[in-house]
Amino acid sequence: MRPSAAHAIDPPQTRPEMSANLSDTQAPDDSRIQRQIRRMGERARSAARTMAAAEPGDKNAALFAIAEALIDRRDTILAANAKDLREGRDNLDAALLERLELTGARIEQMAEGLRQVAALADPIGSITDLNYRPSGIQVGRMRVPLGVIGIIYESRPNVTADAAALCLKSGNAALLRGGSEAALSNQAIAACIRRGLTDAGLPGDAVQVIETTDRAAVGAMLAMPEYVDVIVPRGGKGLIEFVSENARMPVIKHLDGVCHVYIDAAADLDKAIAIAMNAKTHRFGTCNTMETLLVAEPIAERVLRPLAQNLRQAGIELRGCERTRRLVGEEVKPATEDDWAAEYLAPILAIRVVDDMAAAMAHIETWGSRHTDAIVTENVTAARAFLRGVDSSSVMVNASTRFADGFEYGLGAEIGISTDKLHARGPVGLEGLTSLKYVVYGDGHVR
Amino acid sequence: MRPSAAHAIDPPQTRPEMSANLSDTQAPDDSRIQRQIRRMGERARSAARTMAAAEPGDKNAALFAIAEALIDRRDTILAANAKDLREGRDNLDAALLERLELTGARIEQMAEGLRQVAALADPIGSITDLNYRPSGIQVGRMRVPLGVIGIIYESRPNVTADAAALCLKSGNAALLRGGSEAALSNQAIAACIRRGLTDAGLPGDAVQVIETTDRAAVGAMLAMPEYVDVIVPRGGKGLIEFVSENARMPVIKHLDGVCHVYIDAAADLDKAIAIAMNAKTHRFGTCNTMETLLVAEPIAERVLRPLAQNLRQAGIELRGCERTRRLVGEEVKPATEDDWAAEYLAPILAIRVVDDMAAAMAHIETWGSRHTDAIVTENVTAARAFLRGVDSSSVMVNASTRFADGFEYGLGAEIGISTDKLHARGPVGLEGLTSLKYVVYGDGHVR
Repeated sequence: MRPSAAHAIDPPQTRPEMSANLSDTQAPDDSRIQRQIRRMGERARSAARTMAAAEPGDKNAALFAIAEALIDRRDTILAANAKDLREGRDNLDAALLERLELTGARIEQMAEGLRQVAALADPIGSITDLNYRPSGIQVGRMRVPLGVIGIIYESRPNVTADAAALCLKSGNAALLRGGSEAALSNQAIAACIRRGLTDAGLPGDAVQVIETTDRAAVGAMLAMPEYVDVIVPRGGKGLIEFVSENARMPVIKHLDGVCHVYIDAAADLDKAIAIAMNAKTHRFGTCNTMETLLVAEPIAERVLRPLAQNLRQAGIELRGCERTRRLVGEEVKPATEDDWAAEYLAPILAIRVVDDMAAAMAHIETWGSRHTDAIVTENVTAARAFLRGVDSSSVMVNASTRFADGFEYGLGAEIGISTDKLHARGPVGLEGLTSLKYVVYGDGHVR
Repeated sequence: MRPSAAHAIDPPQTRPEMSANLSDTQAPDDSRIQRQIRRMGERARSAARTMAAAEPGDKNAALFAIAEALIDRRDTILAANAKDLREGRDNLDAALLERLELTGARIEQMAEGLRQVAALADPIGSITDLNYRPSGIQVGRMRVPLGVIGIIYESRPNVTADAAALCLKSGNAALLRGGSEAALSNQAIAACIRRGLTDAGLPGDAVQVIETTDRAAVGAMLAMPEYVDVIVPRGGKGLIEFVSENARMPVIKHLDGVCHVYIDAAADLDKAIAIAMNAKTHRFGTCNTMETLLVAEPIAERVLRPLAQNLRQAGIELRGCERTRRLVGEEVKPATEDDWAAEYLAPILAIRVVDDMAAAMAHIETWGSRHTDAIVTENVTAARAFLRGVDSSSVMVNASTRFADGFEYGLGAEIGISTDKLHARGPVGLEGLTSLKYVVYGDGHVR
């Protein structure tokens, strides 16, 4: 599961088309960076060809070798990270420093993540649905890599290893651009990745980490669709919007997680309270955390009185509609439309009492972000209608929204949670980094 | 199968961002059209909600009712078409007029196409891969509509009915913008579609045909991602490039079809000749027609002498590499790099003798358009390597490239052939107009 990034690298200041149009007036540094990023792109494209044809055994050997290199070079990585932390001490807040920090245990986790990806089934080359057609030809579909994946991410250096692992296993090459605050940590990890790849006989350029911290590098990446097939931005809203607007290739993006739990009139009270508590309090800063609770009027009193008490004991600030405040008390702050729209990422919960499921679904459609929404109900007809009718990447019955996660869904790992509709939707694992081509077998068949 | 469009509507002259920025200086007409298209978008969005929840039976009833309306109003449609043809007589060439022309038989074909789409399995709401996870939750995926599909197409008025049928069956709403030369024909067909929809109790706005022939309408469509979820351009390269550059929503696009047949050293001679003849001569103007023939050197003489004779008898102009000309004769024109890159859409074939399969694959990678490429071989190892290694939306063994087609692949119908890698690749049928969301069942499960 990708933590929502309140802190993220800012988008570069110049739009790439502008730099392209104004090439003779722009700073010499920018065009130097453009050339450098283009050369990396060329090398990535070339490495992608080799990776697409690589044997599963070689890809797994590389994953294990990278894991080993991370452990071997643990002290080097920690020293680089210590420098990043020292640099950041003055201008980064505590949460960002916490994310940036590596420890021996975190390095071991990265290594373990690589080994887990190695253990996943290799998706590449598998042929499905190969059927005979009336003409006599056989038609099926083969899973193939996308090519070169560009990933732009924020402070956590473990993303470097996680993203590399998924791209490598799915037969792609990767061009990674981490946050400048983690530059030295990322380079130390990148050296391990390169060593692991070459130890396994695969091209070291299959995973390249952009070293320059100049923001022009992001613009340069977005402007070269001939070398980058898809961009995955993992960061704050500003970055994602900048990438979506400027990328000249498709983007797999994740916007807000304004997730709802709707407690239906036919809900089991214990399940409702347990799910609402878990969805709100398990973690505050994650995109699958519940931000608004909707409760059907007939059950509202029985649910809200005990639940509000539990939530307050857990330190959650409550903001409610008028009916909520009448039931729970004046200490619930009045909620405004801003609350219905908010992704708090904090110990705050908006609560609204609704007439029925139709009203809950209308609220979710108006205010939700199509990420993850859940209904708590014992009524099979309500469950069926909610599952079908709510247009979100994950829709749940009697389960906490916190389950919206690549590991929980069995994808093995994830590169992000897509709130797009096309291509990948919801947690994006190996499959989201691949596509299907048609394969046809004949025996001299003609039309 | 989508015919390649040498003739297509031109892209509008103003870029939509520009119009948006210059709203106070632009012509009053443009902003009127923008408002009009936005209102259509709002209605489409609203209709899409109803369509997403529509029962399969109602959608099928609408398809049959539209088919009936087309037959009932046959004379009205033919009269409208006659007017379009009269208008076009002076400024359209013969091929374009031929495409524009409707006949009783073509109207019957449209109606039959609608009935065939009705007979396809309804994709919407189907849940697949519903499995228990270690946590106890069940996770699966439900197929859902994309929402509002925008389609921009050229002269053939039957696309109006075909595209409407696919969008309707897949639970989407459609906003259609046909070529101005077919405006009256499209409106007559649109009236039948609206009648069929309302007869079946579905919203008439589920399929709207933009009536204005003003080019600003295209810019307006591309600028409203809040109302249009995906754009499918079906037209010439200029239109598709314009749409790709300017659309603020994802695009399912089809660029060139520079398709190859590679005749391997281990090919069966009869199959090779039959496939090459069919791939080139079955139809010239279609995107899955072979444009370049590659022949392995060891078999080149045996293949090319009889094949060149057959091709010339069929009226095909040959352009070859030096080795081809030595084998076949000086009457083969010398091929240049322009020929390797050409999508002729005409009775012309480029021929190149290559050393081996690796050279053929390198040629395809350098010059192909990743549409459809075929190998003719009896060697299973060569077939396996070609299928895996060629990065095209369709890769074939011992079959004519002409099979790359939604009907031939069993999709029932197609809205185009995608040369993109993300989302839909190859012929795009109902599935390409849908996406998958995750569904989760629990019994009070929390993390």
